[in-house]
Amino acid sequence: MKTKSGHPTSSMSAADLMAVLLAKYLHYDFDEPENPNNDHLVFSKGHASPLLYSMFKAAGAVSDEELLTFRTFGSRLEGHPTPEIPWVDVATGSLGQGLPYGVGIALAGKKLDRLPYRIWVLCGDSEMAEGSMWEAFEHAAFEGLDNIVAVIDVNRLGQRGETMHGWDLDSYANRAKAFGWHAIEIDGHDVEATDRAYAEALETTGKPTVIVAKTKKGKGVKAVEDKPGFHGKALDDPEQAIEELGGVRNIVVDVAKPKPGQPHVFETGKLELPSYDEGDEVATRKAYGDALEALGAGRGDVVALDGEVSNSTYAEEFAKAYPDRYFEMFIAEQQLVAAAVGLQVRKWKPFASSFAAFFTRAYDFVRMAAISRANIKLCGSHAGVSIGEDGPSQMALEDLAAFRAVHGSTVLYPCDGNQTAKLVGEMADRDGIVFMRTTRGATPVIYGPDEEFPVGGSKVVRSSDDDEVTIVGAGITLHEALKAADELAENGVNARVIDLYSVKPVDVETLRSAAEATGGRVIVVEDHWPEGGLGDTVLDAFADSDERPRVIKLAVRDMPGSGKPAELLAAAGIDAEHIAEAARRLVESPAQASVR
Amino acid sequence: MKTKSGHPTSSMSAADLMAVLLAKYLHYDFDEPENPNNDHLVFSKGHASPLLYSMFKAAGAVSDEELLTFRTFGSRLEGHPTPEIPWVDVATGSLGQGLPYGVGIALAGKKLDRLPYRIWVLCGDSEMAEGSMWEAFEHAAFEGLDNIVAVIDVNRLGQRGETMHGWDLDSYANRAKAFGWHAIEIDGHDVEATDRAYAEALETTGKPTVIVAKTKKGKGVKAVEDKPGFHGKALDDPEQAIEELGGVRNIVVDVAKPKPGQPHVFETGKLELPSYDEGDEVATRKAYGDALEALGAGRGDVVALDGEVSNSTYAEEFAKAYPDRYFEMFIAEQQLVAAAVGLQVRKWKPFASSFAAFFTRAYDFVRMAAISRANIKLCGSHAGVSIGEDGPSQMALEDLAAFRAVHGSTVLYPCDGNQTAKLVGEMADRDGIVFMRTTRGATPVIYGPDEEFPVGGSKVVRSSDDDEVTIVGAGITLHEALKAADELAENGVNARVIDLYSVKPVDVETLRSAAEATGGRVIVVEDHWPEGGLGDTVLDAFADSDERPRVIKLAVRDMPGSGKPAELLAAAGIDAEHIAEAARRLVESPAQASVR
Repeated sequence: MKTKSGHPTSSMSAADLMAVLLAKYLHYDFDEPENPNNDHLVFSKGHASPLLYSMFKAAGAVSDEELLTFRTFGSRLEGHPTPEIPWVDVATGSLGQGLPYGVGIALAGKKLDRLPYRIWVLCGDSEMAEGSMWEAFEHAAFEGLDNIVAVIDVNRLGQRGETMHGWDLDSYANRAKAFGWHAIEIDGHDVEATDRAYAEALETTGKPTVIVAKTKKGKGVKAVEDKPGFHGKALDDPEQAIEELGGVRNIVVDVAKPKPGQPHVFETGKLELPSYDEGDEVATRKAYGDALEALGAGRGDVVALDGEVSNSTYAEEFAKAYPDRYFEMFIAEQQLVAAAVGLQVRKWKPFASSFAAFFTRAYDFVRMAAISRANIKLCGSHAGVSIGEDGPSQMALEDLAAFRAVHGSTVLYPCDGNQTAKLVGEMADRDGIVFMRTTRGATPVIYGPDEEFPVGGSKVVRSSDDDEVTIVGAGITLHEALKAADELAENGVNARVIDLYSVKPVDVETLRSAAEATGGRVIVVEDHWPEGGLGDTVLDAFADSDERPRVIKLAVRDMPGSGKPAELLAAAGIDAEHIAEAARRLVESPAQASVR
Repeated sequence: MKTKSGHPTSSMSAADLMAVLLAKYLHYDFDEPENPNNDHLVFSKGHASPLLYSMFKAAGAVSDEELLTFRTFGSRLEGHPTPEIPWVDVATGSLGQGLPYGVGIALAGKKLDRLPYRIWVLCGDSEMAEGSMWEAFEHAAFEGLDNIVAVIDVNRLGQRGETMHGWDLDSYANRAKAFGWHAIEIDGHDVEATDRAYAEALETTGKPTVIVAKTKKGKGVKAVEDKPGFHGKALDDPEQAIEELGGVRNIVVDVAKPKPGQPHVFETGKLELPSYDEGDEVATRKAYGDALEALGAGRGDVVALDGEVSNSTYAEEFAKAYPDRYFEMFIAEQQLVAAAVGLQVRKWKPFASSFAAFFTRAYDFVRMAAISRANIKLCGSHAGVSIGEDGPSQMALEDLAAFRAVHGSTVLYPCDGNQTAKLVGEMADRDGIVFMRTTRGATPVIYGPDEEFPVGGSKVVRSSDDDEVTIVGAGITLHEALKAADELAENGVNARVIDLYSVKPVDVETLRSAAEATGGRVIVVEDHWPEGGLGDTVLDAFADSDERPRVIKLAVRDMPGSGKPAELLAAAGIDAEHIAEAARRLVESPAQASVR
C-alpha cells in the first residue's frame, strides 16, 4: 500500500475467514453488480477495507494499480467502503451498522424479492458493544432470517486495548443464542473449520447463523500479531510483512456466479392520492397515512416500516392494506432506519415512520445513509410543542436542524392534507434522504386537491399590492401566520404569507421577491428551536442577496412542559397573537430595505 | 385525573411492583432529595408517570390538589417525568434510556461516591427492543454493578399491539443472563413473590439483578385489563375504575429514610492548565487531553469517560493519571452519554469524549439530557474533512448543527492549544450540555498562554483601520482564514479575521461591529455542511440588526472522500486559496452596507 495510514492488522485477522467465503461460498457476479441474485457482502467492520479491496482484486474486479490508490484523493477505494464502489451496497465505518443494514437486505430477500441470495456480514468484536447490533440480532431472529450469516472476527483487540470479552467466544455465542440465533464457535484461522461453519450456516433453516471466530489481529506478521498498539496503523516494514505472509502472490479467485432468478413483483392498480375538502380539518400525519396507503395501491415497489407507533403515524393504514410490504420494527429506531437502507439496496422504496423526535435516535444511521447514497423516505410525526400534553420528550424541536444538515437531504413540512398527499407522492421517486415532518393535531385544509407542490417550491398564501411585511411559516405555524394576517388586516396592516413547505431545497426566489415587495420586513415562525430550522433556512436564502431584509425569528426558546397545544404555542411566542405583535412592531420600525 | 390524556393502563400494570418497592425497599428522604444516601428510582417507562406521581403522593410529597394538575399547563407533573420535580433524577419518555442512565448513577454509587444507595429502574417490555437497553445490560454486568435492580414490567402490550415476545418471560431472562445478570421471573401482581424477588436482588452480589415480571396492562379494571387499543388513553369511565380498584383510598406510605453516610472525596492538588509556546504545532484534541488531565489533578469532582477511542481523543491521559475516575464505555456512545448524565445526577462533572461524528449515535440521549437539565461536557474529536484519509464516515460535518439545536447548549470550537486548555477549564463549571469540537491535525499555537477566552466571546485576530472584508473562521478554518488574510494583504486587501471559538452563545457585538467596519462584507468559512453551523450562526447574529452585511458562506457542499487534509480542504473550497478568492470577489462587488 502506498498510503501510510489504514487498518492492516484489522484486515489480517479476518483474511482467512474471508478467503474461504470468497473461494467457496460467495455467489456474486462482479460484472453485473445489479444482478438481483447476487449475494451481499457487508463489512460491518468497515475499517477492514484493505481486506475487502483485496477480495475485489482477487476476484479480478480491481487492478493492482487501482489498489495502490487506496485512501488517496479521488480514489473510490476510500478509507472505509462506500457504494462509490459498485460492489459495495452500503457505507460502513461507523461501527455497529453493517449488521442492521444486512438485516434490511435479508428482509428484502426473504419477504420482497423472494430470492435465495444470502447476506454475509463481517463484524468486529469491538462493535458488539453497540446496542444497534443487538437490535439487529433481535430482528433477524424474530423474522426468521436464515438468509443472513454474521461472522464475528474476535481478534480481541479494539482500538485502544482489549475488548470487554477478549477471546471469550462463549460470551458472544451465548448472547446470540439467547437472542434466537444459531451460533458456531471456530478458530478463524482454521480454514477447514471455517469451511464447515459456512456449510452449517447454509444448512440452518428458520434462524440466522453467527460464526464466532477466534482470530489474531495482525495474523501472520510477528511484529504486530496479537499485539496492542497497532490499530489503524500502517506496518513499519511492509516488505518484511509481505515476505512473512508468503511473498507477493497474485491469487485469482473464480467467484461463483449466482443462479438466475427473477425478483417477486407486487401487482398493483391505479395510483390515486387522497384528497380532502377545503375547510375540513385533517391532521397531516393522517394524510401521510392515507397517501402512503394510496401509494401502496398504485406502486408495488413502495414498502413501509414503522417503529411501533404506526397507530400514531398512521403507517398502520399501509400495514393493514399491504401486510406483505410492511415491516414492524418495534421500538428500535436504529434498526428501523437501517432496514430502510437495506431495503433500498434492492431498489425498493422504503417509507419509514416514527415520532420525529425519535429519529434523533437514528441520526448516525441517517448520516451514514447519506454516505451510502441511499434513497430512503422518513416521516416524523408529532413535531413541536403543538403536540401538547405529552411534554418535551415527545416533541421534535431539533429535527429540521438535524435533517437539513444531512448531505443531499430533502426536508418537507406540509401544513394541510392535500399538500401532504401530493408531497408523499413526490417522495417516492426523490433520491437521497427525504424527510417529512407531520403534525399531531388536525389543521384546516387550505389548498384545493388539484394544487401542485413541487419540491423546492413554496406557496404565497396571501398577498396584496401593498403588503408591508412577509410572514413565513410551515406546518402548524402556517395556520398561525394566516390567523395573524387576518388580525393584522383588520388593523390595516397587509401581510404577505408564505408557506415554506419545502424547507430544503428552499424557494430562494419567492422569499427574495416577497422581502423586496414588503419593505425588507420578514418574520419567520417555527415550532422548533431557533437553531437550524426554518429561520436559519430563510436567513440563508438572503445571505448573499442584494437585498437583505430584517428577519425576526419566532421560535421555541424556553423548555416547554405539558399543556394544551394552544397554551404551548402561546407560551413559546409562536401563535397568531405573537406573530401579529411582532409584525406590528416590525412595520412600525424604520424602513428595512438594504441597498446594494 | 382531570386531564383526558395519559397512560393509565401502563401505570396499572406496574402498580403492584412499585407498591412493594415503596413500602419496603426504597430508601429515600423526600424532604431532602439531595441527600447523597438516597436511593434512585428511575422510570425508564416514563409514560407510566401517573404511577410515579401517585407514589409521590403516597409518600406524602405531592398533594391531591397538585396531582390533579397532571399534564396541565404550568404543572411540574408533566406527561413524562422531568427533574423539574425534585425527586426525579432524569427525564424519561424516550424509551430505552432510563436503564442506561441508571447504569451511570450506579457507577457513581459504586466507584465514586462509594455509598450503598441502590438504583431501581422500572422498565417497559416494549423498550427492551432498543439497543441502548442492551448497552446498559452489557456495561452493568461488566462493571459488576450489584447496586442496580431493573424491573421489567412485562405487560405484553405495546402501543399498537403485542411486543415481539409477549409474555415469554424466559426470552428476557435468558438474554439478561447471557449478558451476565442475575434474573428472577415472577408474577408481577403477586406481592409476596415481588417481595421475595426484591429481597433476592439485595442479596445478590457481584452482578446486577433483573426482575422479569409478568403483568397485565390495565390490571384491575375489566374494561381495559389486558386489552389492546388502550395504550396512552384516558379511561372512559374513571369512576367505575376507581370503584373496581377498591374505591378512593388515601394510602400513606412511610418511606424508609436512608442510613447516613458521606460520599467519597478524591483528594486533589493545584489546578494548572497546560500551556503551549506560540508557534508550536499542537492538535486541539491533544490539548483537550492535556487540559483534562490537568483538571483531574486540580479537581476531584471531574471525571472522564470515552467510547474506546481515548488514544485518539487523548482522554487516555486522564485515564492513565486518574483511573479511579475514568470510565471506559467501549464502542457504545448511547451508554457513554447516558453514563455522563447518570454521573452528574450525583454532582460529578463528567467529560465524555469520542469522535464528533459518533456523537450523532447518541443524539437522542443528548436531546433528552437537555430535558433532564443535565450538566455534561462532551468533546468530539476528528471534526470535518480535515481528518483526511479515513473518509466521510469518520468526519463530523453535522455536529455543530446538531449541538446548536439542543436547548441551552454551549458549543465551543477552539483553534489552538492554549485556547483549548482555557476553554476546557471553563467547561467544568458551565451548566447544560457543553460540546467542544476538536481537530485531528496539529495546528499552530497563535495565542499566548495568558490570553482569556470567555464563553460567548470571540477574538479579532487580525484587524486594521482600513479592513475591507471580515473573514470568520473557527478551529481548522481559522488558520486557513489567517493564511488567506496574509495573501490578501500582499495584494493590497486588508481583511479582518474573527476567531468564533464560541459558536453558541455567539459574540453578536463583535460580529456586528466588524461587519460595519468592513463595508458589510463578511465571509464565513467552516469545515462543516452549510446548514446549521458557523455560517448560520453568523447569519443569525445579523438577522434583526440594523446593518445586515452580505454574507458568503464557504462550507463543505459535496460528499468528501479520502485524501490528504490539504487536498480535502481545497476540494471543499474552504482552504486559504478559496477564502482569498471569495474575499477578492466580494471586495470587488458593489458596496454592501445595508441601511436602516
